[in-house]
Amino acid sequence: MSSVDRQLDDLKAEITSEIPDDITVSDVKYEGPELVVYTRDPKKFAQQGDLIRQLASKLRKRITVRPDPDVLSHPDEAREQIMAVIPEDAGVTDLDFHADTGEVVIEAQKPGMVIGRHGSTLREITQEVGWTPEVVRTPPIESSTVSNVRSFLKQERDERRDILEKVGRQIHREEMQDDEWVRITTLGCCREVGRASFILSTPETRILIDCGDKPGAEGEVPYLQVPEALGSGANSLDAVVLTHAHLDHSALIPLLFKYGYDGPIYCTEPTRDLMGLLTLDYLDVAAKEGRAPPYESEQVREAIKHTIPLEYGDVTDIAPDVKLTFHNAGHILGSAVSHFHIGDGLYNVAFSGDIHYSDTRLFNGAVNDFPRVETLVLESTYGGRNDYQTDQEDSERKLKEVINTAHDRGGKVLIPAFAVGRSQELMLVLEEAMREGDIPEMPVHLDGMMWEATAIHTTYPEYLRDELRDRIFHDDENPFLADQFNHIDGGEEERQEVADGGPCIILSTSGMVTGGPIMSWLRHLGSEEDSTLTFVGYQAQGTLGRRIQNGWDEIPVSRDGGRGNTMKMKMHVETVDGFSGHADRQGLENFVRTMNPRPEKVLCVHGDESSVQDLSSSLYHDFNMRTFAPKNLETFRFK
Amino acid sequence: MSSVDRQLDDLKAEITSEIPDDITVSDVKYEGPELVVYTRDPKKFAQQGDLIRQLASKLRKRITVRPDPDVLSHPDEAREQIMAVIPEDAGVTDLDFHADTGEVVIEAQKPGMVIGRHGSTLREITQEVGWTPEVVRTPPIESSTVSNVRSFLKQERDERRDILEKVGRQIHREEMQDDEWVRITTLGCCREVGRASFILSTPETRILIDCGDKPGAEGEVPYLQVPEALGSGANSLDAVVLTHAHLDHSALIPLLFKYGYDGPIYCTEPTRDLMGLLTLDYLDVAAKEGRAPPYESEQVREAIKHTIPLEYGDVTDIAPDVKLTFHNAGHILGSAVSHFHIGDGLYNVAFSGDIHYSDTRLFNGAVNDFPRVETLVLESTYGGRNDYQTDQEDSERKLKEVINTAHDRGGKVLIPAFAVGRSQELMLVLEEAMREGDIPEMPVHLDGMMWEATAIHTTYPEYLRDELRDRIFHDDENPFLADQFNHIDGGEEERQEVADGGPCIILSTSGMVTGGPIMSWLRHLGSEEDSTLTFVGYQAQGTLGRRIQNGWDEIPVSRDGGRGNTMKMKMHVETVDGFSGHADRQGLENFVRTMNPRPEKVLCVHGDESSVQDLSSSLYHDFNMRTFAPKNLETFRFK
Ligand SMILES: [Zn+2]
Ligand SMILES: [Zn+2]
Ligand SMILES: [Zn+2]
Ligand SMILES: [Zn+2]
Ligand SMILES: [Zn+2]
Repeated sequence: MSSVDRQLDDLKAEITSEIPDDITVSDVKYEGPELVVYTRDPKKFAQQGDLIRQLASKLRKRITVRPDPDVLSHPDEAREQIMAVIPEDAGVTDLDFHADTGEVVIEAQKPGMVIGRHGSTLREITQEVGWTPEVVRTPPIESSTVSNVRSFLKQERDERRDILEKVGRQIHREEMQDDEWVRITTLGCCREVGRASFILSTPETRILIDCGDKPGAEGEVPYLQVPEALGSGANSLDAVVLTHAHLDHSALIPLLFKYGYDGPIYCTEPTRDLMGLLTLDYLDVAAKEGRAPPYESEQVREAIKHTIPLEYGDVTDIAPDVKLTFHNAGHILGSAVSHFHIGDGLYNVAFSGDIHYSDTRLFNGAVNDFPRVETLVLESTYGGRNDYQTDQEDSERKLKEVINTAHDRGGKVLIPAFAVGRSQELMLVLEEAMREGDIPEMPVHLDGMMWEATAIHTTYPEYLRDELRDRIFHDDENPFLADQFNHIDGGEEERQEVADGGPCIILSTSGMVTGGPIMSWLRHLGSEEDSTLTFVGYQAQGTLGRRIQNGWDEIPVSRDGGRGNTMKMKMHVETVDGFSGHADRQGLENFVRTMNPRPEKVLCVHGDESSVQDLSSSLYHDFNMRTFAPKNLETFRFK
Repeated sequence: MSSVDRQLDDLKAEITSEIPDDITVSDVKYEGPELVVYTRDPKKFAQQGDLIRQLASKLRKRITVRPDPDVLSHPDEAREQIMAVIPEDAGVTDLDFHADTGEVVIEAQKPGMVIGRHGSTLREITQEVGWTPEVVRTPPIESSTVSNVRSFLKQERDERRDILEKVGRQIHREEMQDDEWVRITTLGCCREVGRASFILSTPETRILIDCGDKPGAEGEVPYLQVPEALGSGANSLDAVVLTHAHLDHSALIPLLFKYGYDGPIYCTEPTRDLMGLLTLDYLDVAAKEGRAPPYESEQVREAIKHTIPLEYGDVTDIAPDVKLTFHNAGHILGSAVSHFHIGDGLYNVAFSGDIHYSDTRLFNGAVNDFPRVETLVLESTYGGRNDYQTDQEDSERKLKEVINTAHDRGGKVLIPAFAVGRSQELMLVLEEAMREGDIPEMPVHLDGMMWEATAIHTTYPEYLRDELRDRIFHDDENPFLADQFNHIDGGEEERQEVADGGPCIILSTSGMVTGGPIMSWLRHLGSEEDSTLTFVGYQAQGTLGRRIQNGWDEIPVSRDGGRGNTMKMKMHVETVDGFSGHADRQGLENFVRTMNPRPEKVLCVHGDESSVQDLSSSLYHDFNMRTFAPKNLETFRFK
């Protein structure tokens, strides 16, 4: 008998002794980080109000109770009873019964009403029907990503259960090492922006944090081949943790499955969906540019299948000696500061991922409050001594001026933007400006994956800023559903129509004018003297965006990406900064200054060489911490 | 055709074109780092004085020329001709013909006379007989280690050639990586003394430097199991380099072969022999103390079989991108500062191993002159701010006082000492003191492996200090052969006789009174009030030596190591320091100050925490270098 089986037997005995005699426990199993308790008396279990919570705190495990398959009522009957319990306003759009696990997935427009106060409605459902309800939101804006992911996971349900059981047994395996140490190895993202990738290791466990590409530097991927990464086999990793979906953190996650990795990926639910969207697009772009993609869409599906989504604040066992907790990072939807508690109080490490410290329209500011943290791995994108940005109020004022001026000329405003994050922030700015009359009402066209990304945002309002979340719950106030927003889904024909029409605002990918529909918009509008091209994000060296910013006025217009004709740029060109998703220098300092507790050590990463050096030496002088500006391929030991 | 075969074909063509038309090249092969050229015309080759040297410098390879087996003269005939060429005074004791490679091994008391001025006699031999001569020294004092190693290697000749060919092809493989970096990973010996073990790695190559145990801390072995060490397979290492034979550097080298390592070990020839002696003794001691030894004597033989001995100053390719050069370290016989030249001028790292900076009687001081060196890994045993030692002249004066005092009382002097290094230094001190009349002539008894170790020293006089080497060449001046030295080879009976006799000096292992014949000597002499126990080396915490130094006078005397009787210590106890094999604080500073060129970075290792911290911060302040006091399990990147 394996040690995990012994452990499960012990847990079963303990649970049986803790609960009333008339409730039977037929089986206990691990599924990923959760302990699943099967019972022949699901209704009685549900009647004991706090029982599950008490068990969870007693056993220090996440517990789910499920009915034995043979005590289940028939789905048709259960469906009627469930619909009778749930208030009509919840807007249930689908019920999906899974007899294999006794779960019923309820898709509703207002999940909160299905859950009820402190889960009371859910408990009521179980008391009535025995089935274990699980609730997901019906996207307020239809999202093909969300529906594809959901139907894919449904189709792969059996295999996924096998994966979860295997992962669960791995997590709860017996600890074999009596040595104690904690190390971080840098595989990328040091003295550079891009290819984020780190290994956190103990004698028992190895965890990969992020696995991204480096934009604008093809081939500069994380050092995955060294022995301390995948050199000793992809399955020598216990877990992969993804801080957020941006490609410089996620692009090569699916590659791990091509290399034979077969373990879990921990991230938030929106990060999972956005990763799916962005990595598939990454493959598309590679194909269009004639580059061999490093993996196939099959591996993206594998990544999704192996994802174990966690919510902010959930303390989760991911290895015998490691607990992971995600916290809001304020950077993009689902972005997470990742906190690792190692050993039984031995050591704590937080990886900031990318952060925005102050609140924005879209997100609350990054969390920097932890029970304990000795070492912080901190992004430093704007860590340079002069990287103080205009504050957003000024930026918004300037943007509105630019729009008004173009409008007065009868021109259009074309804004290159990334699909995820800043586009949604701009949508909120524009919606409010029109509502308040700061700029005239006019159409705002969204081209590229922006609409889809917005739809994903509305599927997960829990991850948005409090006030915004509340507004989204009321259909008539959901700012993303405002009338002026138009999804460009009619291709070139629709673009031509827009180009021929009156004043409007166009947000289009790619954000650095390196491809995508923005190229088409430049063909349509480039020679319009009344219109304005407006940059709102960082334009990297070597991109067309940067060149136009610098005054280039010959831009390529061939449709097939070849080196064909150029056209003369006649549009006005403006730059409005201050809309970054990253904390600026002040924000980074504030994040550390107000951090509770203050870490002993800070590793400054995710910034170019001078930025990490500046930030590292300032934090050292100001806060008297040990700070480092690591290189790639180094290993730091903390215990 | 593999790239190595293509390379060999090209080399054969180039050599053929470089040499006179009447000399044929029948084959070229790699054997370890050497290129072996087979010819049907060995005599003509030898006639072309400088030809081999010219080829070597042209091809930048170490070249050996060997005759085709079928052109060889009969050994009986060759033997006569060879003996006619070599001067009689050379004292040839053996000729050993190997028809498979056309080599003849000549064992002689005076190898220099067999070699002749700039190798002239060797060339004459080949011109006469065609065979390729190789010369080894007949040990002036019979050494069972040396003769065992030699006869073992003779017996394993065929397998050894296979190993060398395989290693040679590995060394000369095509470089596959276009990335460039240089890293050092610490597996032990950081903020501690013992378990020396480091990995030097590039994208192409991984080299293990040393693999020792930690004396007095059983079970604290190097972190070999981590992925960057053997975690990705023992054969992911390209080479093992051993700086010297002390067990804190060598004890676990044979273990690598138990773990499946099958590659080369680079060290000097005396280090190979001493490693054989010391690791076999290490197994013996483990067995006697009832501990399970980590490997068997079989693995010691594997280690010897896989050793490729290098001489000081030989620049040797050990990987496609790494050249290794050993330099005298002044610490023990064969100890080497190991200099690695990486890439084509990319980077240079020197590992000091253990060093003694100033000259001693036995050795020249450590070399610190290199073509280039950017990073130095420096031992710091006496790196503490107060670790200045008495200089040796004062120490010798004190030792002579101690001896004279005991002699005047009619007592004996018992000195616990390590077998290798300091014992031989003391022998030189005592021999001179008696010769010059500073102390009375009396027997000096050598017990334990000391005699054997001394025999190994006399086999390799090239590794000793210049003047000493010259003296050893003259039988009548070899100080180790002085009449007063007596090898205790008669066991307890002989010890009893010595104990019953008059004044004398006894050197016996172990050096820290943790076992070995010193225990027997304490039983015999411990209660003699006229005799003196004299410590000349560091006594570690927890050893009996340290306890006696601190005034303990109850010492265990049971013969079987059990917790039986104790006896009252009545001997005088004296400590004479200054005979260390390690540079003291001043020596370490001098080594760095006079180093040419000065390194940019210094990693201070092989010292307890305060020693490495003290040395690191002093070197930083005094010489403005970047200095580090690494922890075990860290990785530093230099390029
Ligand atoms: Zn189903
Ligand atoms: Zn990001
Ligand atoms: Zn990023
Ligand atoms: Zn040593
Ligand atoms: Zn040592």
